[in-house]
Amino acid sequence: MRLRNKQWAKPLILAHPEMILVRPEKMQGHWQSRFDQARPLYLEVGSGKGQFIVEMAKTHPDRNFIALELQEAAVAMILKKQVALKLPNLQLVLGDGADLTDYFSEGEEGEIDGLFLNFSDPWPKTRHEKRRLTYRDFLRQYQAIMKPDALLQFKTDNQGLFEYSLVSMNHFGMTFDLVSLNLHHDKRVTDNVPTEYEEKFSADGGRIYELVAHFKH
Amino acid sequence: MRLRNKQWAKPLILAHPEMILVRPEKMQGHWQSRFDQARPLYLEVGSGKGQFIVEMAKTHPDRNFIALELQEAAVAMILKKQVALKLPNLQLVLGDGADLTDYFSEGEEGEIDGLFLNFSDPWPKTRHEKRRLTYRDFLRQYQAIMKPDALLQFKTDNQGLFEYSLVSMNHFGMTFDLVSLNLHHDKRVTDNVPTEYEEKFSADGGRIYELVAHFKH
Repeated sequence: MRLRNKQWAKPLILAHPEMILVRPEKMQGHWQSRFDQARPLYLEVGSGKGQFIVEMAKTHPDRNFIALELQEAAVAMILKKQVALKLPNLQLVLGDGADLTDYFSEGEEGEIDGLFLNFSDPWPKTRHEKRRLTYRDFLRQYQAIMKPDALLQFKTDNQGLFEYSLVSMNHFGMTFDLVSLNLHHDKRVTDNVPTEYEEKFSADGGRIYELVAHFKH
Repeated sequence: MRLRNKQWAKPLILAHPEMILVRPEKMQGHWQSRFDQARPLYLEVGSGKGQFIVEMAKTHPDRNFIALELQEAAVAMILKKQVALKLPNLQLVLGDGADLTDYFSEGEEGEIDGLFLNFSDPWPKTRHEKRRLTYRDFLRQYQAIMKPDALLQFKTDNQGLFEYSLVSMNHFGMTFDLVSLNLHHDKRVTDNVPTEYEEKFSADGGRIYELVAHFKH
């Protein structure tokens, strides 16, 4: 969702270069040096206000996390939390999901051990298909930066986007590891971490869909 | 679903060898000779009481249809309809979906232009996975008897079976053509033909799922 601009966002971001990157290109191939120690590296594309990635970083101290978000106002809200929490395994990036191969190493040097897409914009109109984060051009970038067998976890409440994404990922040749058509009532999934939006939507009785998949190699 | 045995079933079946086969093996490679003329050939595996396949045969006089059903009592109910209707493009088979490659030619001689699975038994217990009609051994048989690019259309109201089938067909390397998570409210699908069960279930407010896919070759 689009947030209103916040006056305090830019100054806060500029005041914390140790927590947030505005020029992530320069870290390509050296992301682990941004953390107190090297750990498997997980990326969320489109972190919104950050409830998911912050909770993940707290729950999994044995992993490093990167929250990528395009909106200054949103990423500044994550930063506010991180300034208070100072989680050693969380880094923020103000950047664009369309530029992932500029930010991360590709191929055999793939830096990413897992990737999360949570409640991305559904872009329901056919002419906007290319903007959906599960469109093939995005999948190609995820594949490029992910290690072999690394998992992509995709959650949405949008039925149309989920239908589209099942077909798109299947066409791309991805292998499905889990399909859940009602995540919050799925006995197989015991470690779900909800986003802000997910909590609210689900409390209203809505269904959450999840697809976990990996790229063939 | 399992039907009670019917006293009249066997005599009716034996009285109509021109409409129903109890030894389909002998037709392998010659199915078109069972119809008044050759047309693209569609097979439903598990036809139940036959509302779907009878309606399809009525709606598509330019195609030939085969209703395969394991239960004598069920196939006899389809036969009763067909005795009254005498549709020239419908043949019935009392037979087992596990024996398809005994009934139909394989490989380049594939006889089937399209295959339907409607509301198959979900067999929810893990130890019964092999009985699900979307288990890989069944998919292998469908692939063997289907022409290249022929479509498999799978419908169910069972969420667990649909989740399983998406993964199973994806793992088998099938290409998805359509995923619908709420078929009766899907604007892309305008020609759905419901089964008896589907009509009743949907009237009660239940969701119908559909997957259309084809085998790579």
